Amino acid sequence: MRKKKIAILGSTGSIGVNTLKVISSFSSYFEVVGLSAGSNIKLLNQQIKEFKPKIVAVSDEDKGTLLKRIYKNSKFPLIYIGFEGVIKLIREINADMVVIALSGTSGLIPVLEAIRCKKDIALANKESLVSAGSIIMREAKKNNVNIIPVDSEHSAIFQCIKKEESKKIKRLILTASGGPFLNYTKKQLKNVTLKEALNHPKWNMGKKVTIDSATLMNKGFEIIEAHHLFNIPINNIDVVIHPQCVIHSMVEFVDGSILAQLSVADMRLPIQYALSYPNRFSNNLTRLNLTKLEGLKFYKPDLKKFPCLSYARYAAEIGGTLPAVLSKSSERVVKSFLNKEIKFIDIPKIVKRVMDMHKIIKNPSLDDILSAEKWAEETTVREIEIQKGRL
Amino acid sequence: MRKKKIAILGSTGSIGVNTLKVISSFSSYFEVVGLSAGSNIKLLNQQIKEFKPKIVAVSDEDKGTLLKRIYKNSKFPLIYIGFEGVIKLIREINADMVVIALSGTSGLIPVLEAIRCKKDIALANKESLVSAGSIIMREAKKNNVNIIPVDSEHSAIFQCIKKEESKKIKRLILTASGGPFLNYTKKQLKNVTLKEALNHPKWNMGKKVTIDSATLMNKGFEIIEAHHLFNIPINNIDVVIHPQCVIHSMVEFVDGSILAQLSVADMRLPIQYALSYPNRFSNNLTRLNLTKLEGLKFYKPDLKKFPCLSYARYAAEIGGTLPAVLSKSSERVVKSFLNKEIKFIDIPKIVKRVMDMHKIIKNPSLDDILSAEKWAEETTVREIEIQKGRL
Repeated sequence: MRKKKIAILGSTGSIGVNTLKVISSFSSYFEVVGLSAGSNIKLLNQQIKEFKPKIVAVSDEDKGTLLKRIYKNSKFPLIYIGFEGVIKLIREINADMVVIALSGTSGLIPVLEAIRCKKDIALANKESLVSAGSIIMREAKKNNVNIIPVDSEHSAIFQCIKKEESKKIKRLILTASGGPFLNYTKKQLKNVTLKEALNHPKWNMGKKVTIDSATLMNKGFEIIEAHHLFNIPINNIDVVIHPQCVIHSMVEFVDGSILAQLSVADMRLPIQYALSYPNRFSNNLTRLNLTKLEGLKFYKPDLKKFPCLSYARYAAEIGGTLPAVLSKSSERVVKSFLNKEIKFIDIPKIVKRVMDMHKIIKNPSLDDILSAEKWAEETTVREIEIQKGRL
Repeated sequence: MRKKKIAILGSTGSIGVNTLKVISSFSSYFEVVGLSAGSNIKLLNQQIKEFKPKIVAVSDEDKGTLLKRIYKNSKFPLIYIGFEGVIKLIREINADMVVIALSGTSGLIPVLEAIRCKKDIALANKESLVSAGSIIMREAKKNNVNIIPVDSEHSAIFQCIKKEESKKIKRLILTASGGPFLNYTKKQLKNVTLKEALNHPKWNMGKKVTIDSATLMNKGFEIIEAHHLFNIPINNIDVVIHPQCVIHSMVEFVDGSILAQLSVADMRLPIQYALSYPNRFSNNLTRLNLTKLEGLKFYKPDLKKFPCLSYARYAAEIGGTLPAVLSKSSERVVKSFLNKEIKFIDIPKIVKRVMDMHKIIKNPSLDDILSAEKWAEETTVREIEIQKGRL
C-alpha cells in the first residue's frame, strides 16, 4: 500500500507533537514529508532526524538560519525560512494531507494556501475559520479539498454526521468541560492566578487554548468553527457544560434522535481519525471504561461568569469582520495575561471594548479581514495599556 | 411524492399501535395497505376504519369469521383467516415494507415469507432472529431485502454504524435499564409478584417483553439479534446496565471511539426511523432535555441475580438449535408466570433445565429449528408441571 504523505505545519506545538506520535504508531500507513515550526529548532531537529522530511520551514529567521547551517552539507531536508518559507513549503511539498497545527490567527494564510494547492487539510486551527470561515469553505469547495476537523468536538460531530445531509440536522450540541473555574463565583474569578488558569482539569493542551478554555472563549470559537465546517446556522449550535469530558459533542437530528461520540480525552484519537479517515485503525490508546465513570452530567453554561461565550456568539451572528476582531483581540489579551500584565477578568472586558469600537465590514474580502485583525491588535494593545494604568 | 405502502403484522399489539400512531402523523408519506392481528378484532376494526387497508388477516379463526361477517358487503378489506391467512396476506399485499410487530416465536415464518416475497422489513420481532438468525440473514441477502431494526437498542446501533464496515467495529455495547428488580437482592427476588414484574421503570411495552426485561432474558435475546443483524461475533457484544435509559446502545470502533444514540424512551422514535430510513422526519415527540437528566451511569450486569443473560449468551455461543430452544422455552415459562402458575425465580430454572436436556443439532435447517421449538415447548410444559408439584 502506498503511504499517505503528511506535512505538519506547527510540528513542535501540542497538536504537532501528538500528530507525530500517531504517525510513529502507524509508520506503515503514513510518512512525514514536511514540517514547519516557529522557533523551537531543538525539538524540530529531533523530529527531522526521526521522520526525515523532505522540506522544513522555520518562521523565526534567526533560528531558521541556525538550523540551515546544521544541514548545509545535506541534500535533505531543504530548509526554508520566515513566513515566506512556510508558504514555499506548502507550495512545493508533495503531500496528500497538510495538518494545520498552527496556533492562533497565524493559521489563516497557510490554510488558504494549502487549499489553493489542492491539498486535503486536517484542521486543528480554529482561529482561521473564526476569522474567515466563509472564504475558507468557499475556496475548499472550489478546489475540491476536504477539511477534516482535528478539534475533539468537531471530530465528534464529524463522526456523528457521517454522510447525513445538513437538512436532517436539528442542532449541534458542543460539550465543554467548563474549565478550571467552572464552580468559581464571580468574586472568586477576580483573583485567579495564571497558574490556576493553566491547570485544565481534563485536557493537556497548548497555553493559548488552555486560557481560552478557562474563559469559555474557546467554546465560542468552536461554535463559529462548527457553523462553517458543517453549514449549520449559529442559532442551531448549543453548548452544554459536561465536566466529565466523556461525550465530546453531539448531533440532534430533526426526529429527536441524538448521536454522540465518546472516548477518553486524548488528542491522539481525533488526530488519528483525521489522518486515517475514512478508515479507522486499531491502536493502543486507553479505552473508555464505561462502568468506572462517574455519572455523566450536563449543565447550561453560566454566561454571566463566562461572558466570552456570549461575545463569540454575538460576533458570529453579526458576522462580517467582527469574528476576526474577536479572535485577534482575544489572542492579544491572552498573550498579556500569559505575561501577567492583566488579570483573568480583564480578558472579556478588553475584548468587549475592542469589539464595541469596531466598524464592521459586511461580506469582507481577505484583505478586509487582515486589516480588521491588524486594527484589532493595535486597539487591543492600547486597551491593555489603559487597563494596566488602572491597576 | 409516492406514498410508501406499509403492511403491519401484529397491528393491535404495542408496537403495532405505535406504528399506526407514527403513520397517522406522517400520512403524506405513508399509507397502510395491510394489517394482521391475533384476536383483538375490536381494535382491529377501528384500525380498518381509520386506515382503510386493502387486506386484513386475523389469526384466530372464530374472531376472523366474525370480522368477515361485518365486511361481507364491502369490496375492501379482503379478510383472510388463520395462520394461512397471514401468509396469504404477505404474499398478496402490494407493500414496500412489512412491519413485523408479532410477539414471540410466531414471528419466524412470517418474516421468512416476507423476505421471500422481496419486501423490505421493519423488524420488531427479535425471537425470529434468535431462533433462525442465520437462515433469515442468508435469505435476506439472497433476496436483496433490507431488514431495519425497530428495537430501540438495535435502532441505536444501526444509526451509529450507518455505512461503516463491520471490520471497523470493535464491539457493540447494548444498554439495559436493568428492569424493575435491578437493586433487589437474590432473597427479595424470591417473592416478587407478577404486578411488580410488569411494572417496568422506563418503557411501556407488551407483557412478554416486559417480563423478559425483568429477567434480563430480553437483553440476552438482543445480543443474539445484534449478532445476526450486524454480523458481529457474540463475544464482541457487551451489555451494560444504564438505569436512566437515555443512551439506547453504543458502538465502539477499533480506534477506541464510541458512538452512542440518545433520546427519550419512546418506541415511536425507532419505529419512525425504520419507516423513514434513510430519511429522517421532523416530529412532535418530546425532546431529550440534557440539562434536566440525572447523571448517566453504567454498571456491569449481575449475572448471579439475572442468570438468563448468561444462558442466552451460552446458547448463542453454542448455536445450532439451542437458541431456538432458549427462546421457545422462555416464551412458554413466561406464559405460565403471566398465568401465576410459577414464581419469578422459576423462570431461569426451568429454561436452564430444558436447555440442558436438549440434543443440539448443528447447522440446522428451518425444519430442525421448528422441531426443536416444538420439543422445547413440550419439555417446558412438563417441567412447569413438575415445578408446580413442588409448590
